[in-house]
Amino acid sequence: MPDSVTQQRDGVRDTGDRTGPEVVLVHPQIGENIGTTARAMLNCGLGNLRLVRPREAWPNEKAVASSSGATDVLEGAKLFDTTADAVADLSRVYATTARPRDMVKPVLSPRAAAHEIRDYQETGGSVGILFGAERSGLDNDDVALADAIIEIPMNPDFSSLNLAQAVLICAYEWRLAGAAEDGGAPRRGRPQAEAATKAELLGFFEHLEAELDRAGFLYPPEKRPRMVRNIRNLFARADLTEQEVKTLRGIVASLVKGRGN
Amino acid sequence: MPDSVTQQRDGVRDTGDRTGPEVVLVHPQIGENIGTTARAMLNCGLGNLRLVRPREAWPNEKAVASSSGATDVLEGAKLFDTTADAVADLSRVYATTARPRDMVKPVLSPRAAAHEIRDYQETGGSVGILFGAERSGLDNDDVALADAIIEIPMNPDFSSLNLAQAVLICAYEWRLAGAAEDGGAPRRGRPQAEAATKAELLGFFEHLEAELDRAGFLYPPEKRPRMVRNIRNLFARADLTEQEVKTLRGIVASLVKGRGN
Repeated sequence: MPDSVTQQRDGVRDTGDRTGPEVVLVHPQIGENIGTTARAMLNCGLGNLRLVRPREAWPNEKAVASSSGATDVLEGAKLFDTTADAVADLSRVYATTARPRDMVKPVLSPRAAAHEIRDYQETGGSVGILFGAERSGLDNDDVALADAIIEIPMNPDFSSLNLAQAVLICAYEWRLAGAAEDGGAPRRGRPQAEAATKAELLGFFEHLEAELDRAGFLYPPEKRPRMVRNIRNLFARADLTEQEVKTLRGIVASLVKGRGN
Repeated sequence: MPDSVTQQRDGVRDTGDRTGPEVVLVHPQIGENIGTTARAMLNCGLGNLRLVRPREAWPNEKAVASSSGATDVLEGAKLFDTTADAVADLSRVYATTARPRDMVKPVLSPRAAAHEIRDYQETGGSVGILFGAERSGLDNDDVALADAIIEIPMNPDFSSLNLAQAVLICAYEWRLAGAAEDGGAPRRGRPQAEAATKAELLGFFEHLEAELDRAGFLYPPEKRPRMVRNIRNLFARADLTEQEVKTLRGIVASLVKGRGN
């Protein structure tokens, strides 16, 4: 979301969950992508970054510039010469790829993998997720090091995801997998908003209907009950607050005396 | 995912689902971000892009360069002068934001919103999702045009998502919602084809506000914008049908001429 959307919270700054899975970038070619990857990781609360022989020099100024402040993640990044070295201390490794491989390995969605990773880490396991280079992706020797494959379900005709966006999807699912629930149930945007009582609502309805009778709007009489029901229904759906009911009564009164002012 | 991960599939090239929700970028500042947004959209099979007064000239070469070939989406992008114009033909609008607003609107997760959007469009509704500018985000008048807010659950201490990544999360959830086995959100009671368009709703708002100005209700001037926003919000929440908007206009007209009858 745009920068302005940053939320403020009291308490310590969350600079990334050191217990989350290791994000392993294998031969990343572009410094900017390492920075945007660090940003995406920290957006989702992940802090553990590993780099296998990045093409550009490390530390990398362009990575810092594109990380939008996720410098803790970049400064904590560990460098390795080979993918084997990078995963040596891990007990479970996932390879992100969609290219068909002549290897028999379980293939998981990011969502299924996220739950598996959470469960695995809760029982003391250490996990890494491999992401290939921008151009060439993971080679078969890298994938051979993995226990399972994560396939991100994209448009088959345009599935080439930017590196940081592939990391974002996996990190986002990891974050949601840890949430009590995905926040799915719609909630009031302003819980403290005082909902109007039925009495207040009825008072407004009677006020409005009295004025509409006087104006001859609820006519003919045989149609009045239906018209009143429809009008009450549309306002009832608005889930009005006490203040909004007052506003509506003010609007009706104001429109009625109208030109009087 | 890295380019190498692109999947091949027989059959026509999927250049974006023209029936999916409209992605509306409000005052995007950076051409590259429009290109990476188009790429993220097409990755997830979305093709409808709308731009409200982009800061840089349009068409934009940097957008094309950063789109990695999602040129169909960029070439199909529609330009608008105002957010109101951009949503005029839509019947349901979501605003992506995490900043607390003093507006009562439902707040949904990207996942819950994705199911709601799928269900809504299946019954004939037209949907747009608003994304604010990189720096400033959506202003209150933009959010006031929305029926609901989508809050992307990020690390509260580092929730500033890149624009294209905010779009990716919403588009990814939309794509998965289409494949989901869980059935998604409960169906709506009535066909959304009956829903009023934003243009019809705005027509009513302008009619009501003109009469309230004449009655001296929207006074003093410095308070008018806030009052208008609150009034629009309460009616927007009612999810009005075209017929109900006509009824409300009839009510306003009737109350105004009132004693005339």
